Amino acid sequence: MSGADYDVVVRGGRVITATDDVVADVAIRNGTIEAVGRNLGPGRREIEATGHLVMPGGVDSHCHIEQLSAAGIMNADTFESATVSAAFGGTTTVISFAAQHVGMSLRKVVADYAALAARGAIVDYTFHMIVADPTPATLAEDIPALVREGHGSIKLFMTYDRLKVDDEMLLDVLLAARKAGALVCVHAENHGMIAWMSRRLLEAGHSAPKFHALSHPRGSEVEAINRLVVCAELLDQPVMVFHVSTAEGAAAIRAARARGVKVYAETCPQYLFLTADDLDRPGAEGAKWMCSPPPRTSADQEALWQALALGDLQTVSSDHAPYAFDETGKLRAGPSPSFKQIANGLPGLEARLPLLFDAMVSKGRLGANKFVELTATAPAKIYNIHPRKGSIAVGCDADLAIWNPDLEVTFSDALMHDRTGYTPYAGRQVRGWPTTVLRRGEVIVDGGHLNAALPRGGGAPATPSGRTTADDVFASKLGVRIV
Amino acid sequence: MSGADYDVVVRGGRVITATDDVVADVAIRNGTIEAVGRNLGPGRREIEATGHLVMPGGVDSHCHIEQLSAAGIMNADTFESATVSAAFGGTTTVISFAAQHVGMSLRKVVADYAALAARGAIVDYTFHMIVADPTPATLAEDIPALVREGHGSIKLFMTYDRLKVDDEMLLDVLLAARKAGALVCVHAENHGMIAWMSRRLLEAGHSAPKFHALSHPRGSEVEAINRLVVCAELLDQPVMVFHVSTAEGAAAIRAARARGVKVYAETCPQYLFLTADDLDRPGAEGAKWMCSPPPRTSADQEALWQALALGDLQTVSSDHAPYAFDETGKLRAGPSPSFKQIANGLPGLEARLPLLFDAMVSKGRLGANKFVELTATAPAKIYNIHPRKGSIAVGCDADLAIWNPDLEVTFSDALMHDRTGYTPYAGRQVRGWPTTVLRRGEVIVDGGHLNAALPRGGGAPATPSGRTTADDVFASKLGVRIV
Amino acid sequence: MSGADYDVVVRGGRVITATDDVVADVAIRNGTIEAVGRNLGPGRREIEATGHLVMPGGVDSHCHIEQLSAAGIMNADTFESATVSAAFGGTTTVISFAAQHVGMSLRKVVADYAALAARGAIVDYTFHMIVADPTPATLAEDIPALVREGHGSIKLFMTYDRLKVDDEMLLDVLLAARKAGALVCVHAENHGMIAWMSRRLLEAGHSAPKFHALSHPRGSEVEAINRLVVCAELLDQPVMVFHVSTAEGAAAIRAARARGVKVYAETCPQYLFLTADDLDRPGAEGAKWMCSPPPRTSADQEALWQALALGDLQTVSSDHAPYAFDETGKLRAGPSPSFKQIANGLPGLEARLPLLFDAMVSKGRLGANKFVELTATAPAKIYNIHPRKGSIAVGCDADLAIWNPDLEVTFSDALMHDRTGYTPYAGRQVRGWPTTVLRRGEVIVDGGHLNAALPRGGGAPATPSGRTTADDVFASKLGVRIV
Amino acid sequence: MSGADYDVVVRGGRVITATDDVVADVAIRNGTIEAVGRNLGPGRREIEATGHLVMPGGVDSHCHIEQLSAAGIMNADTFESATVSAAFGGTTTVISFAAQHVGMSLRKVVADYAALAARGAIVDYTFHMIVADPTPATLAEDIPALVREGHGSIKLFMTYDRLKVDDEMLLDVLLAARKAGALVCVHAENHGMIAWMSRRLLEAGHSAPKFHALSHPRGSEVEAINRLVVCAELLDQPVMVFHVSTAEGAAAIRAARARGVKVYAETCPQYLFLTADDLDRPGAEGAKWMCSPPPRTSADQEALWQALALGDLQTVSSDHAPYAFDETGKLRAGPSPSFKQIANGLPGLEARLPLLFDAMVSKGRLGANKFVELTATAPAKIYNIHPRKGSIAVGCDADLAIWNPDLEVTFSDALMHDRTGYTPYAGRQVRGWPTTVLRRGEVIVDGGHLNAALPRGGGAPATPSGRTTADDVFASKLGVRIV
Repeated sequence: MSGADYDVVVRGGRVITATDDVVADVAIRNGTIEAVGRNLGPGRREIEATGHLVMPGGVDSHCHIEQLSAAGIMNADTFESATVSAAFGGTTTVISFAAQHVGMSLRKVVADYAALAARGAIVDYTFHMIVADPTPATLAEDIPALVREGHGSIKLFMTYDRLKVDDEMLLDVLLAARKAGALVCVHAENHGMIAWMSRRLLEAGHSAPKFHALSHPRGSEVEAINRLVVCAELLDQPVMVFHVSTAEGAAAIRAARARGVKVYAETCPQYLFLTADDLDRPGAEGAKWMCSPPPRTSADQEALWQALALGDLQTVSSDHAPYAFDETGKLRAGPSPSFKQIANGLPGLEARLPLLFDAMVSKGRLGANKFVELTATAPAKIYNIHPRKGSIAVGCDADLAIWNPDLEVTFSDALMHDRTGYTPYAGRQVRGWPTTVLRRGEVIVDGGHLNAALPRGGGAPATPSGRTTADDVFASKLGVRIV
Repeated sequence: MSGADYDVVVRGGRVITATDDVVADVAIRNGTIEAVGRNLGPGRREIEATGHLVMPGGVDSHCHIEQLSAAGIMNADTFESATVSAAFGGTTTVISFAAQHVGMSLRKVVADYAALAARGAIVDYTFHMIVADPTPATLAEDIPALVREGHGSIKLFMTYDRLKVDDEMLLDVLLAARKAGALVCVHAENHGMIAWMSRRLLEAGHSAPKFHALSHPRGSEVEAINRLVVCAELLDQPVMVFHVSTAEGAAAIRAARARGVKVYAETCPQYLFLTADDLDRPGAEGAKWMCSPPPRTSADQEALWQALALGDLQTVSSDHAPYAFDETGKLRAGPSPSFKQIANGLPGLEARLPLLFDAMVSKGRLGANKFVELTATAPAKIYNIHPRKGSIAVGCDADLAIWNPDLEVTFSDALMHDRTGYTPYAGRQVRGWPTTVLRRGEVIVDGGHLNAALPRGGGAPATPSGRTTADDVFASKLGVRIV
Repeated sequence: MSGADYDVVVRGGRVITATDDVVADVAIRNGTIEAVGRNLGPGRREIEATGHLVMPGGVDSHCHIEQLSAAGIMNADTFESATVSAAFGGTTTVISFAAQHVGMSLRKVVADYAALAARGAIVDYTFHMIVADPTPATLAEDIPALVREGHGSIKLFMTYDRLKVDDEMLLDVLLAARKAGALVCVHAENHGMIAWMSRRLLEAGHSAPKFHALSHPRGSEVEAINRLVVCAELLDQPVMVFHVSTAEGAAAIRAARARGVKVYAETCPQYLFLTADDLDRPGAEGAKWMCSPPPRTSADQEALWQALALGDLQTVSSDHAPYAFDETGKLRAGPSPSFKQIANGLPGLEARLPLLFDAMVSKGRLGANKFVELTATAPAKIYNIHPRKGSIAVGCDADLAIWNPDLEVTFSDALMHDRTGYTPYAGRQVRGWPTTVLRRGEVIVDGGHLNAALPRGGGAPATPSGRTTADDVFASKLGVRIV
Repeated sequence: MSGADYDVVVRGGRVITATDDVVADVAIRNGTIEAVGRNLGPGRREIEATGHLVMPGGVDSHCHIEQLSAAGIMNADTFESATVSAAFGGTTTVISFAAQHVGMSLRKVVADYAALAARGAIVDYTFHMIVADPTPATLAEDIPALVREGHGSIKLFMTYDRLKVDDEMLLDVLLAARKAGALVCVHAENHGMIAWMSRRLLEAGHSAPKFHALSHPRGSEVEAINRLVVCAELLDQPVMVFHVSTAEGAAAIRAARARGVKVYAETCPQYLFLTADDLDRPGAEGAKWMCSPPPRTSADQEALWQALALGDLQTVSSDHAPYAFDETGKLRAGPSPSFKQIANGLPGLEARLPLLFDAMVSKGRLGANKFVELTATAPAKIYNIHPRKGSIAVGCDADLAIWNPDLEVTFSDALMHDRTGYTPYAGRQVRGWPTTVLRRGEVIVDGGHLNAALPRGGGAPATPSGRTTADDVFASKLGVRIV
């Protein structure tokens, strides 16, 4: 007889995966989904979900938490504040960054961030390893060892002064990743074009936040994507293009995929819901909408939705990059900083899912299954934390977001739980909000309230498995062995 | 307390959907999946599946059964023989055709085929309505009425003398489908090019079966797809391109989808596993491999796999078109018929899933989730019979195929259960075969044997729901109301 | 000693070819250019051209003259009126049509039109052979014989009830052309789409001239071009797409050329200077702008200019199709005819060059050399009447248009010399007009006046040479001999 | 009466321009073409050309002469030896390089090279200005001044250690060129990819010349072209892509041109007639075929021919980069140098035209007019030295190459007049060779012999005119003035 000792039963909701959408109970034992069925139970705790949508907790595969930027600016969020914010937004797993700067040991960097996360996170987490200093030791020792330990993804920057890798370094890291079996995620923008436009704009006296958008010419994105794709193709190494913002960028990815290049890509809510016009505000106000790449046009929004529909882009992450809108963050350089002095990045951990739920489920664009796929299942699969994360199936971690599909909410600065103090979506109304959230069977948000009894530091890292170690691509393609 | 009175529990298998792949029990009551979980049960019947793969029964969305061809040749299969063959191959739902010929009432045609199916089918079924005579009554009365009754898809032919519609008729049907909310499936080959090449080949004395492949120039496919796409785009009407065989055809579909045209497409095992060279056999032997479009090249095979991987093609059906390899079928015109006299079509209901399982699961190409998606979930969704069909989730019909992943089988004519008397895959070895198959909870194939106690005529039609009735596309696109 | 007995010397003008642009004299003897140089002469007649542009007389490779339409409507122009109009517009060679209707002997048709032209033409001429009835005799006898006699181009229609060929006939003609060495020109629009839209529009009561534009969906052009290209590619036969009107049409041609298909294409002034909005006039007035395909949008205009710049389109012809704007022509069906009853076609023989000169030379778009190339040299080469026609070089026919680049002219109905009684460009002002025109050394327009002494019936047919007879493309491509 | 005092008359040849091909005399006075006609003359010197082809002397728009490489290796050729070699090959104008290295004044560099050329050149010449150090003075002072003086083209390198500009510098130069009205020519290969592959190959012990080809991955070309195109598009500045070697590179240029980017491109004989296999020779022998980019495959050759046919590529230059095959040049580093130590470059000034004549005229690929266009007219126009150079028309410099179309010649090291001591085409037989060559009316090669009486230092620089000064692209595109 099953279910006699279920810990929790979520009863009667619409249980939605990337494939299915059925009314059922979800039974949980020891933090794991034990059964999905009718008339299960009873559980020691029963959660009534009739009329609600029971979805996998979100996986936000691109967020910056408690991270010191290369420019020396500290994130506004600790792991605690960030993950509380995530939880309120229905996200139960975050993949943030362990950020190497030049001169640092990558292994120590990962250990340090893991310690920070273990102390503060209330949802599960893992890390992308930012490699800014691909020394021989980093490439030949740290990366293989860390991948073996379960850190399966590397992040590279093609722009930013202290972080960017040049093309030769890019190839070195791609090859190291190929040998170790890691995925390489890339911030793909052309550094020189941005530097040049920024210099020209500032020399001409155009320093307001709105010029940030002009300083990242849309060509700078498709250029870098093309360059990355050519390098990935040379080495037959999978790559993930982060935060695609332009129609041309999405088209370049489609073309590369069509000819067999192993390229994945994501976009973010700011490219689906904002435009460059949002930066055009008086004074420093526009800084609230500054991120890189910048929001583009409504035509780009349409192109990105179409790319999501077709599978050219596979996930939607937040790129949560929280800087307080005060002198500790965005406005450090004073009340009228130039756009080059303002920290780039938007809060998004909490807003990501409600914005997409409203568009996809409430308004019907692409539908509930695709919402789950883009925001939970696909990132979990791409980053190798599925089947533990990203779905509702027997044996999965019982990470659930229970959505009230009828709740109408208006975004406001006060509503959000991160520490930036603002949201770029203030004033926007959505329908649907996650009111109860479970992490491995524990209720962390309960009817809109944080579970006060929740033990801090409870988060345990997910364990991505490494990809298959690669063969020597050159031996087969070029007829010569070089690696 | 769950499960006390389950009818059947399939225990301990790897339960695979398009999204997930977990070890679990599947509990069934009243023909429906009641729960998926650990330690469910007990069931009145227990089926041990440890080490096996429990997958949704296949949905074969393109097969010709008990159908009189326009040329007056009868299918070799009745609904009974065809569905027995399907069941042995792991397929539990077939979408065959109710084929209007010129002069026939479409409603009567559908009723007649439904009666045939009800008498013979041992798996579930529904129909595409072949429209060969789009009279005003067909368009304005029969199609809307039949769609309301649950017949949500129409099939058109752009080639074949007695079946083909011209472009004006095509547009008439697309518009009628748009108003009624139906999907339009199309055999897209250019009739004139095929007729011209056939005539030229025969005039030059080239009549052996292998010339059938030459008589369908590869351009005839991409031409017809382009034409269909332009028409579908004009009316903003969803279409499904049947049996894509060429790289160019797949590329044309990709391009159309990228610019927002609502076009779906399928391919079939014969285009993934056979080539035109297979037709090059002595005497009439090559006739066993004759189908339309013909198998192409290995480069096309690769392009089609890539198109499946990217989602440009969404399903793999059999296009089962069974003609006996004797004087009642393929060789009606005598022992040395010209290729124009030989019935076109291959048996495939039974071979489809094992061929794909071997390639995708055993050999690993695209994997088990994608196998389920292409062969069951996606067709069920596209043809609106999901969630009853195509997945393993609570409330779905308990249509299951339990695969022994280690069973090695060599295809032979004797192995197959259809009535063509041959298989084009004879001699090919695969690993993995469905040994037990359930239809709505009833075991119809049990350890490789047909359930003798199975009531004949038990099949009940699935009920596709209609699509949303369309607005007037012209009013918004052209500024004028015409429909 | 050169020049002592030159017949004519055109002195001191800017002599412009598709390549060069130099100040020089042009010396003529016996109707032929004898020398281009400095200080040539003297000539028995001296024409002062200082400050003027001396250009090759235009070659208008697509015009309908004294032609009975399939619908039984007679052109407004005789060869005399049409060629007088041409001459006033700077055009000295016309390629009009010898139009076979069903049941007619192609050889007789060509002979009949040649007789008409010989009686009336004041400029040189040759014919495209319209094939509407590709009988075995037409294909196997008439076409080869006529090509041997110098008629090197065939015209086919993919639309129009009494003229259109189906795909099988299209292939028959393409193959016959390939064997004979002829070029096949095609009116490429999808007949079914046009018929369908026309029917729907009329049924909905939309019959005004402006609905003509809607009745030719833009997709009907790219569809037919794609179909034609696939057929031409199959047979490796050169084709010329007439009057491209859409950006998509031009893009389809670019794509085909890039993969090696031998496809040429032209556009016409009406697609560069008019839009569909021009048809939106009160009453029947819009009929003045009705042609097929219809003018499209300003975005299409830009795309066509770009296609001309890149060489995707090679020529600009007039498609002069003159129907009087009265009850003998456009308004035969009464004062409020439906758009389906109004003859399609615009006058353009006279306006073509001044419109293009103004845009290309006076306003500078693409420049004077390209003007000559598009309007004279390229058509002469494509239709094999170069080097006699289309350039200014030793041995060429002395067909010259001497342009006053500063003359400002406003188009008006009264200004034109054809017999339609109107011009669709009325009110438009251009800078630059050909004031003196020579045909084989004879001054036919002299300072804006027709040479009254000109012998009528003087035109002699140009003699196109046939293209190389083709090999058996199938033998090499398909490994089988069928033709 | 014309011609009484012509200096030279070339009589009775086939006079060929990019447009025409006629039998005529060419009369010359004061170094200039005075007339093209029949029965001209007489001239003080008569050159009989009956049966010969009289073509414009070639314009070789990409050759390195008497240039010190950044690596400190001296060209094998002086202006005298190079231009003698050019003349023997039918080329009468060379555009070589004035090569700035870091720290040099661009104006002084140009003056120095001009002095070298004035002392040694026997054909006409002008320079591209290599900018390797885009200092503010170079950008704001030297470039505008030099363009005003007639130096209308700049050359940039995207690879090579001491020459390459980064993307920010590239944009600076493109903008300076835009303001000054200059064309920017670019060696477009990705530096990092080449450096990375070279390092990997050498570390693996692969140092033979044949590995040079592998060290330039084909993707390194299309990557750099894409990057350049994006930058050129941003600034709306015309660019010329030098020496395209791959099908993908040509396709990228086609795509850019189709969307309106002002990009020109050339290829060279080594990419049309050689492949990477040519480098695979024993010992150091392969070094004779080493150039950058390297020759690719026969499929690339076909793609480049097709791109020339369509106008995607506009010119064919030699990229003559002469290094002696001895210890002073290619083998400076000893008898077994690694490919990274071997100077890159091939001799080609003399072979360029005969190779192309044989392929295009004798064998008929694209024909004689296109031969003239690609090798003389188009480069003269693109580099603004037309109408003085590149055609046969009144007023042009009388630079003529008189070809014997029947002369069969086998390439050999001894046949060539440059100082490399070898030709990569040794053993190859061609039909057609220029036997008499005139520079501004002077016979410099006479029946295969150098005119011993020719005054050295006679070459006078051609004077390219500057392009139109640009408006502020940003003001119109971005709505903000920044330049």
